[in-house]
This record gives sequence, C-alpha cells and structure tokens, in this order.
Amino acid sequence: MTRDELFAQIRLKRSFLCIGLDTDILRIPGFLKETSDPVFAFNKEIIDATHDLCVAYKPNLAFYESHGVSGWVSLEKTVLYIREKYPELFIIADAKRGDIGNTSGLYARAFFDHMDFDAVTVAPYMGEDSVKPFMVYLDRWVILLALTSNKGAADFQLSEAADGEPLFEKVLKTSMKWGTADTMMFVVGATKAEKLKEIRKIVPDHFLLVPGVGAQGGSLEEVAHFGMNNQCGLLVNSSRAIIYASGEDDFAQRARDEATNIQVDMEELLLEANLI
Amino acid sequence: MTRDELFAQIRLKRSFLCIGLDTDILRIPGFLKETSDPVFAFNKEIIDATHDLCVAYKPNLAFYESHGVSGWVSLEKTVLYIREKYPELFIIADAKRGDIGNTSGLYARAFFDHMDFDAVTVAPYMGEDSVKPFMVYLDRWVILLALTSNKGAADFQLSEAADGEPLFEKVLKTSMKWGTADTMMFVVGATKAEKLKEIRKIVPDHFLLVPGVGAQGGSLEEVAHFGMNNQCGLLVNSSRAIIYASGEDDFAQRARDEATNIQVDMEELLLEANLI
Repeated sequence: MTRDELFAQIRLKRSFLCIGLDTDILRIPGFLKETSDPVFAFNKEIIDATHDLCVAYKPNLAFYESHGVSGWVSLEKTVLYIREKYPELFIIADAKRGDIGNTSGLYARAFFDHMDFDAVTVAPYMGEDSVKPFMVYLDRWVILLALTSNKGAADFQLSEAADGEPLFEKVLKTSMKWGTADTMMFVVGATKAEKLKEIRKIVPDHFLLVPGVGAQGGSLEEVAHFGMNNQCGLLVNSSRAIIYASGEDDFAQRARDEATNIQVDMEELLLEANLI
Repeated sequence: MTRDELFAQIRLKRSFLCIGLDTDILRIPGFLKETSDPVFAFNKEIIDATHDLCVAYKPNLAFYESHGVSGWVSLEKTVLYIREKYPELFIIADAKRGDIGNTSGLYARAFFDHMDFDAVTVAPYMGEDSVKPFMVYLDRWVILLALTSNKGAADFQLSEAADGEPLFEKVLKTSMKWGTADTMMFVVGATKAEKLKEIRKIVPDHFLLVPGVGAQGGSLEEVAHFGMNNQCGLLVNSSRAIIYASGEDDFAQRARDEATNIQVDMEELLLEANLI
C-alpha cells in the first residue's frame, strides 16, 4: 500500500485507528477456548466487528510466539483472513526485529514474502544495514522505533549527545536518509505527546505509528494536535482497550463500541484539520 | 545452566566455541532436500558431528522464521534434539527481541517455557523494562546487544554522548545494574576486538558472546587476548565457516574439521591463560 492509498483509506473511513491484535489466550472468552484455534477465532470475531472503523491491524508477534508453532499458525491465518476478506486494511507485524544485513533480509522475507504484511516494526540499534533490507520491497514499509511509550525509553532513547540531541532525534535524522517517507514510518509513543512537536520539525512528512493511547495513558487530542500533518500522518494504535473491552460473550460488540468511540473522536479531529 | 557450570564445560571440552545454526535452505546439500524436514536433518548432522567440540549452539531465528510455521517446527525439533541428546550444551536463541515489559515477558515465555533455550539475545533500545522480564527465569540468560559486528554499529552504538562516552558503553554501564554476571552476557563483535580491552574494564566478570570471527574477519587470538577473564568469559561464535564448510555429501565431516581447527586454537589459548 502506498502513502497516498493509506491517506485515501483514512479519508474514506474517517479514522486513523490501528487495532493491536495482542491476543492473549488467558483473556479470550471461555466459549472460544473450545474451538480448534481460539486465538484465530478471537481475532476473526474482532476483525469482523471492527474492520470498517480502523485502517490498520497490528498483531504483536510476542503474543503468537509465546505459543510456538501453534501461535504461528494462528498468526498466518489471521493475516490471510484480513488480506482476503478486507484487502483495504494495512497490516503491521509488530516484531521489533533487526539483525546484520543478510539476516535482516531473512526477516523481511518472513514478513513480506512468506506472510503478506504491509509493514514491520524494526529496532534501530544495529544501524543502517539492519534496516535497509526491509526497504527493497515495493509498497512495503519499515516502521522504525524512535521514541517508545514505555518507562525504559528514558534509559537510552532520551540520553543526550554532546550537542544536547537525544538519541531518538539522532535515530530520526540519521535513518531518514536511508529511505523516504514512502518507505519508512516511525514509532512515537503517545505518552510522549509533547515531544511530537519537535519530532514533526524533523520528519514533517512521515507517518508516525503511535502506541500508548488509552491503557498506557496517552491523549488522542494531544497526539493529533502535535502530530498531524497534511496527509494525517498518524496511525494511532489501541490494543487492550478495544479487544478486551469485555471478557464475555459480547466481546466483539463491545470491541466495536470502543472502536466506534475512538473513530468518532478521530473523525472530529480530521474535520478540524480540514482533512475530510 | 549457571556460570560455573558453563566454565566447567569450557574446561572439560577445552573449547569456548559456539556454533551458529544459521541454516539456509539454499545452502543445504541436495541429498538432504528430499527429507521431510531438510533444515532439521541438516542441523542434526551438524550437531552430531560437532557437539564434543563446542559448548554452545546458537540458532538465529531469522533463518527459521523465513519459512514460517515449518521453520518453527524445524527450530523446536532442533532445540529438543540438542536438549535430549546432548544436555550439557548451552543453547542460545539469537532473536534480538525486546518490547515493552509485559510483552517482553511473552518473548521470554516463548524461548524459556515453550522452548527450552538457555539464553536469548535482546536489543537494548527500549531500556530496562524491555530486558528484565528475561531475567526472572532461574539459570537462564539475557545476552544484550552492546557492540555488534556489522557496519551499521557505527550509526548509533559508537555515537558519543556529552562526556565522550559512546552509546554502547552507556548500554554496558546502565544495564549491568539490572542484573548480575550470573544472568547477563553481552554481544561484542570480534571485528571490534580492540574495543574489548575497554569493555573488560567496564564488565570484568560477564561472559561475552563474540560473533564475527572467520567469515566477518575478526581474529580469535585478538579476541582472547583482550577479552578473556579468569572464567574464560568468552563464547566465540562461528556459523558459516563451519556449517557451510562444504556443500556436498561430506558437509558434516568438513564441519567437524573446521570446528576442530578452531577448538585446537582455543585449547592453546586456554592453556596460555592457565585456565586448563
């Protein structure tokens, strides 16, 4: 999916919501646990109930890997299901991968060839040759970690260089030379919304994937206020607040209700910004 | 496996060799491709031919993930095979994972509960809460990326803070407070052997996992000279030079020959250091 196509979807759906499919077997309603693949059954219900309210889904790989082979089966089925039934959706592998050049190329093969993801999150610590192999795929995306939403972000990402520049800014400035805003996005946590103003000066055109709204305490209004650009430029993720809105039989409807609440807020923010 | 047990294995085998199981289907000898699981069949032959010459095996996850579900089947079978047939071996998941706290906990579950790895490589960019969930497992290890062997290491790892301290030193100094030398190791590339002297001042007791000897150009003698401590403190990895020593029917014997060459050199270095 190209950047223009993604923006077109945002305008069409009046939403820049990404739903995180962080599916934890312990939180799946009881009646689904009797099916042959409870994780996929849960995802399928969530997707059917929310696909018109969001523009992206983001399975976090850790939730699937924790079940080993059967988790990978659930993941592959989920990606295939979205791709076949709702081909307009953008699918992000939240994998935070990164290795030396030829090895990163194999991760790219896993997510873009073997599975049909549109994007994969990548950790920047190993530098250019760990990131570029993901960029050789046409219409696929690298989403590089810049400033994450967790407490540990302070340990290194905010540590300052000689010129007072924090590491995450160096990551933005250095990595934006490796590709364009048509092949890269950045992860910027909503819990650091005040930093978005500074970040937009460095990367005015790039899409930002913003986790941390909702359960982690970030504010959607602040994110939109400081982070929106003339193509929206934001994918705001919500995981737990939507997919675990209820642990009962009504979980899919309650997920839809939560996603609707966010979509309505997003529509208002898009209208205020004259983007729809 | 504890640090003392690992050192005991090093003394017993007169080797601190780690063999990287970076098994690429394209490089597997033709006759194995007709088996039902060529990747596992290849690994099994390599392991049977080399288990007495090394103390550790290190599958790199990217090679397995690139095949999706079938790759994970090969990986799980490989780990189980080593664990059952050669329980004295230390097994490292070269996964370079890392996510926010509870999500890193799921990766730990994948590698330490679902599979039976002794250690997993972890990327430091997301800080303390992304690393600590791997440390709650008794006798299991985090191997944190510090200074990697690739060209891209220069992009961020070597960038200097206000006090002239490069990022990888900050990673060492900060993260060594999160656990002890009994729960953490660090990745330090052999291509940066001259840095090992400096690194040993910061982390005198920790084991270091050293890739980059052989195919990537690092020197074993330099690594031992600058990096050895009084418990050896080194796991030196070789992947391609051993497992692809031959692409023909004799690949296992040729892998053994290459591993023997390295073990003989290592024995001499351990003798010189009065560790055996």
